[in-house]
Amino acid sequence: MLTPTIVWDEAGGGIALLDQTLLPGRSEVVLVRSTSELVDAIARLAVRGAPALGVAGALGVVLALDEAAREGWDPARLDAAITRVRTARPTAVNLAWGVDHVLSLRAQGRDAVLAAALRLAAADEAANRELSRLGADWLLDRIDRPRLRLLTHCNAGALATSAWGTALGVIRELHQRGRVEFVYADETRPLLQGARLTAYELAGEGIPHAVQVDGAAAATILGGRVDAAVVGADRIAANGDVANKIGTLGVALACHAAGIPFLVAAPWSTVDLATASGEQIAIEERDGAEVTAYGAVAVVPDGTPGHNPAFDVTPARWVSAIATERGVLEPAAGDSPSAHA
Amino acid sequence: MLTPTIVWDEAGGGIALLDQTLLPGRSEVVLVRSTSELVDAIARLAVRGAPALGVAGALGVVLALDEAAREGWDPARLDAAITRVRTARPTAVNLAWGVDHVLSLRAQGRDAVLAAALRLAAADEAANRELSRLGADWLLDRIDRPRLRLLTHCNAGALATSAWGTALGVIRELHQRGRVEFVYADETRPLLQGARLTAYELAGEGIPHAVQVDGAAAATILGGRVDAAVVGADRIAANGDVANKIGTLGVALACHAAGIPFLVAAPWSTVDLATASGEQIAIEERDGAEVTAYGAVAVVPDGTPGHNPAFDVTPARWVSAIATERGVLEPAAGDSPSAHA
Repeated sequence: MLTPTIVWDEAGGGIALLDQTLLPGRSEVVLVRSTSELVDAIARLAVRGAPALGVAGALGVVLALDEAAREGWDPARLDAAITRVRTARPTAVNLAWGVDHVLSLRAQGRDAVLAAALRLAAADEAANRELSRLGADWLLDRIDRPRLRLLTHCNAGALATSAWGTALGVIRELHQRGRVEFVYADETRPLLQGARLTAYELAGEGIPHAVQVDGAAAATILGGRVDAAVVGADRIAANGDVANKIGTLGVALACHAAGIPFLVAAPWSTVDLATASGEQIAIEERDGAEVTAYGAVAVVPDGTPGHNPAFDVTPARWVSAIATERGVLEPAAGDSPSAHA
Repeated sequence: MLTPTIVWDEAGGGIALLDQTLLPGRSEVVLVRSTSELVDAIARLAVRGAPALGVAGALGVVLALDEAAREGWDPARLDAAITRVRTARPTAVNLAWGVDHVLSLRAQGRDAVLAAALRLAAADEAANRELSRLGADWLLDRIDRPRLRLLTHCNAGALATSAWGTALGVIRELHQRGRVEFVYADETRPLLQGARLTAYELAGEGIPHAVQVDGAAAATILGGRVDAAVVGADRIAANGDVANKIGTLGVALACHAAGIPFLVAAPWSTVDLATASGEQIAIEERDGAEVTAYGAVAVVPDGTPGHNPAFDVTPARWVSAIATERGVLEPAAGDSPSAHA
């Protein structure tokens, strides 16, 4: 049983987060009691993953309301704190979506906001389970093998969501049906979410797997070692372009060249119809030191800068399918989220 | 001034190697005086890079002859030692080529073998300088910019050769002509030859650069940040398929999709006409622990295996050009090394 990624702790007066920067070495829950602590936790990726950030955004509004009451904030200060939560990271649309989703209930009081945030977390889990079923069906309809060999990039599991997972949810669903042979998990530099988190979840499920360097993905795919790749998403544009962890674009290109499915699994909350295409998605540039040092050890000569975009955008033409709880749509075949709004 | 990668130390009675596992932190030269020490140095990548391995193979024969004389080996034992050097790593053809190149002179005595090995090292440097000129001309003929923005993967510099470099030789040549704007160096997991060695050489030349994770290559290329990619090679098949460091295939795919040149720079000694196509190239599988641990720190849960192929094969159709000292050939346009034998 995994420790929950993110839950509201009413007795503690805050959000209980499993600190993902410490996994797999340590399972440590931190209690976040202020919006500045939450913004910090989001920035350093103690909590990460688009759907989990949606829940963090919603619960962040509760945190802000409680903090305002406790500290006697004026409305401007409260609004500023909520905005800081809403914009703590630029790429995942779910963070702003979670905030906005509950903010309209503010007039009905803090408990109504909390109830809405908890409903949002429950709805995220239900959406994940449904999109996982639909995504698994879609893959099994297209791949004629008793057990599938899959590749995933980064972590889009229970640790990236309120529960169950998206890309890893599809894999979990396939595993429960006895239909998974093997999973290659890209380690996902620079922060190793694949090596640290996806391997942790796959081991917990007893799914056979290996971790590989991100550079091995193309050879694994074009060498015929996998039947499909399954990844999550941080933002999906109206035309079907997909922003996800840096390295995803290369996985999609290799799948396209190999003629195997590249499946994106994400709740509908990840779709941003206000963004027409991927070109309009702001890509977070993180500190170059995440690339040029490993923990406390510098791996480059003194003074060498790191180029560290956290995400890339895969054009719709290389996205075979997007599985959401509303159904599976096929951008590479000309379908787009905007047609299903 | 860089410390030479590999030189014969007659007074010391062995091969002086710059231990590349310690760079950029420490510049330490090790004196290798036996074939078993040489095989160990090759296996742990103290010396690496296809052209440098060619020189190591040739000097390894001298080492074996000296060792046999010193220890009173019978001919069978001497042959076995030479074979161990020749097969210390399976993928780079240059190692066997270097051994075979000097072995025919064995009947003329040890000094004749040494002289041939030293000529081979000098010829490697001359070849590198010539192919660098030709590769630079080829790029400048095709890219209409005052200064080029380039991407490279792994290290194909002076540290990978007897001197000057191949892919980095092309970049060095362009820089001497004042035609380099910026270089993105892929860090090249698992052993970080890009972050550690290429950054070290680029800094030494004063060429503006940044290190990025391997997963960023596709976004850097498709995002229009570079004009071409330049890499080395460990073995080139007769049809133009290219084996090189794991991750190269993804770089080639992205260049193909972006419509920019993917240039392979390698001496003709890297061409293996006895290998018809890339499918016949043995790919070295290295210890999974190179992926799953960083130095002494495990980055995956206990028991998670690593999948660790050291190389991948880029099909000729995605190789825009191969620059050798004999000229530039264009596999993607249907040309192949076998046509130039």
